[in-house]
Amino acid sequence: MIREILVLGAGKSTAYLLDYLLSKAQEEKLQITIADIKPENIAKEIATHKACTVIGLDIFNEKERQRQIRMANIVVSMLPASLHLLVAKDCLLHGKHLVTASYVSDELMALNDVVKGKKLVFMNEVGLDPGIDHMSAMQIIDGIREKGGKMLLFESFTGGLIAPESDTNLWNYKFTWNPRNVVLAGQGGAAKFIQEGTYKYIPYHKLFRRTEFFNVEGFGRFEGYANRDSLKYREAYGLQDVLTLYRGTMRRVGFSKAWNMFVQLGMTDDGYAIEDSKGMTYRAFTNLFLPYSPTDTVELKLRHYLKIDQDDVMWGKLVELHLFDANKKIRVNQGTPAQILQEVLEQCWTLDTADKDMIVMYHKFGYALHDKKYQIDANMVVIGENQKHTAMAKTVGLPVAMATLLILNNKVTTYGVQIPITKEVYNPILSELKENGIIFKEYDMPYMGYNSELEYS
Amino acid sequence: MIREILVLGAGKSTAYLLDYLLSKAQEEKLQITIADIKPENIAKEIATHKACTVIGLDIFNEKERQRQIRMANIVVSMLPASLHLLVAKDCLLHGKHLVTASYVSDELMALNDVVKGKKLVFMNEVGLDPGIDHMSAMQIIDGIREKGGKMLLFESFTGGLIAPESDTNLWNYKFTWNPRNVVLAGQGGAAKFIQEGTYKYIPYHKLFRRTEFFNVEGFGRFEGYANRDSLKYREAYGLQDVLTLYRGTMRRVGFSKAWNMFVQLGMTDDGYAIEDSKGMTYRAFTNLFLPYSPTDTVELKLRHYLKIDQDDVMWGKLVELHLFDANKKIRVNQGTPAQILQEVLEQCWTLDTADKDMIVMYHKFGYALHDKKYQIDANMVVIGENQKHTAMAKTVGLPVAMATLLILNNKVTTYGVQIPITKEVYNPILSELKENGIIFKEYDMPYMGYNSELEYS
Repeated sequence: MIREILVLGAGKSTAYLLDYLLSKAQEEKLQITIADIKPENIAKEIATHKACTVIGLDIFNEKERQRQIRMANIVVSMLPASLHLLVAKDCLLHGKHLVTASYVSDELMALNDVVKGKKLVFMNEVGLDPGIDHMSAMQIIDGIREKGGKMLLFESFTGGLIAPESDTNLWNYKFTWNPRNVVLAGQGGAAKFIQEGTYKYIPYHKLFRRTEFFNVEGFGRFEGYANRDSLKYREAYGLQDVLTLYRGTMRRVGFSKAWNMFVQLGMTDDGYAIEDSKGMTYRAFTNLFLPYSPTDTVELKLRHYLKIDQDDVMWGKLVELHLFDANKKIRVNQGTPAQILQEVLEQCWTLDTADKDMIVMYHKFGYALHDKKYQIDANMVVIGENQKHTAMAKTVGLPVAMATLLILNNKVTTYGVQIPITKEVYNPILSELKENGIIFKEYDMPYMGYNSELEYS
Repeated sequence: MIREILVLGAGKSTAYLLDYLLSKAQEEKLQITIADIKPENIAKEIATHKACTVIGLDIFNEKERQRQIRMANIVVSMLPASLHLLVAKDCLLHGKHLVTASYVSDELMALNDVVKGKKLVFMNEVGLDPGIDHMSAMQIIDGIREKGGKMLLFESFTGGLIAPESDTNLWNYKFTWNPRNVVLAGQGGAAKFIQEGTYKYIPYHKLFRRTEFFNVEGFGRFEGYANRDSLKYREAYGLQDVLTLYRGTMRRVGFSKAWNMFVQLGMTDDGYAIEDSKGMTYRAFTNLFLPYSPTDTVELKLRHYLKIDQDDVMWGKLVELHLFDANKKIRVNQGTPAQILQEVLEQCWTLDTADKDMIVMYHKFGYALHDKKYQIDANMVVIGENQKHTAMAKTVGLPVAMATLLILNNKVTTYGVQIPITKEVYNPILSELKENGIIFKEYDMPYMGYNSELEYS
């Protein structure tokens, strides 16, 4: 009997997701319906696949949305996160499983008991981060526990970066995902985590100066800054007693210190609009954040304000972005500083056609066993193939697709609003990811506890 | 015929207000009713005055509140700002004038047409700042305009400080008003102002490093940092075309740079609670904001993090507040960093019985006249008498009291929701304030435009 999978939203993260499902269509007897508001954007080789039906769907069209969900055996929502609840309620109404790559919202979690009662699986956070981070971490943590170990430390960092062969600017960075999220990263409250049993708090304006470093074999050195709430999965992972719990974002070394210049200037502020920003020169934009002077240049004022020495590499990074250019003009009108900065950065940090992206993930696990302390480091690097088949699309799309098939084949027996932290989910997905080149390398390390001065290689 | 004045709320700012009204009681035929939730706190010499009636009133008791307002000829609300609207609506219902020292809220402003229609005066912002700043500035601005001048620059700074004879700590500061407002000062968005025709924006974490300086004859040097919205009264003052518009807060020199240490550490954050803050030592509190180290002291970590040299006076300021003390314990539980910092500061910055406070206000007015440019600086210093008769209570309470009598005597003919920027209000009040020792000194200066490097004496 043919099973129907309804995929809502066919954005840029869905190339691998759809390829995977279509490749399994014959063997698994799948029919895939892709519903998107702009169905004409869907690649011809997908749209013309015989196991595939493409339809135009406005997600706010309740009648049509419900009709499609009713006909499906399982629903995959790749829509913006705010729209999942709408879909989830219909799935509940019609008794369908649901898969998303997004964070579980409080509203979604509130449905948990009803979802369980109907023996449905609403699997979320099954992309990259969140997703592969959960699965790879829990596989190692459960392994440590099974041999009698007690967890002492868990650190986890992920970065969406540019592949070495496409790394052509002074920032060692290009936008491979939503640029707005990059510009606003870290805002909204102090970062909170635990280091060696002590709570630590970092305000936004210090966040990018409190990095730690990582070496990844064959790929060199990276840095990481703290996420807002490292403690989010403490209970879910069973890490209530660990001494160190720290989650963050990875960048190439030097990015964060340079990004901090924007933070210090106030250019990442999204809270107010700049009057008449349209037509303002990049130079005038920069000058908005500097003290008035009747004689000094914007350059000297900025150097002085941020204490940038003559020979500091940071300077070149600003020049590369044309921030002192008196001809380049801002296009957005009444933009917030963050919106304008995003426009400036997009001029320089957009992927070229031939550019490849790169995903890096780094975990550290410290544990005690028979009165001795141990550490395991695990890391994963995935390089994209091209602008469409990116490492980001692969690492987000494949686990979503694999989870969908697992649930459809009744291999997931834990019902309710879920994240992929149980063996029945992470074991088959991680092993299938490995076959697809998404591989974690593990290293036995001496246990050092948390020490940001040391580097692990 | 006896006129009745209803004073709602008799907090610490009302000593001069009540003294003034009672001193005018006989000549002006006034009866003053003071309504407070804790009437027993009102000083005996006031409570027993024959022109005075003291009553207990819960402002949320609608019936009794309305009864009192109905019996009054005019209402003075010294309640917390959030409660004025309640009172204003009753004043409207019963056709009574209203006076407050608080900012005009949008909700209050929405009543403007109805207030006008009933020929009532709702006079607000008639304390110190806002209040005396409006009146003293508008008197000089109107004077400049009357002689044909065109305004080019307006800067205005006010500070609630400690008198020189009571200035006994390294910060040259004690709390003379609401400590919470001091701890949270500058938060909530970037400061915005205009300097020589250019908008300027300062993010919170740079606010206390972008000060300018003032010399006040006989009182030495002060500094000022920008208020959040310097442009607030641009229309009200008729300053749409000025090149420089800058409003701020005054402190003794060195305060802001030292305060910035708290900002940088994240200690002024009011957005999250510290777990188990009760019983935590001051030293452990400080350490929450510093990187983990298995060996280094809190002192060295802080020096390194904030780049404080061995011989920097900033260091002594931290030590004076006992921030490295391993015995002193925090009392507030689950406090935000800002609440805990306030508790720490209150240990050191509370007024002693004999301490006197000091109010300083500094205006600069630049203008063009017959193709030449001029500048007038005006400043005011008021020293308190004692802990009860503070300069703050005097400069807030007296203008409120004077405005009340003016309105009662039908000397204010502009109806509606008002601030004191018309001659009929500011001229009589400023001249009466002068008789009470609240005096502005004016200085003719060479016009310099805005230049934060220069000092005006």
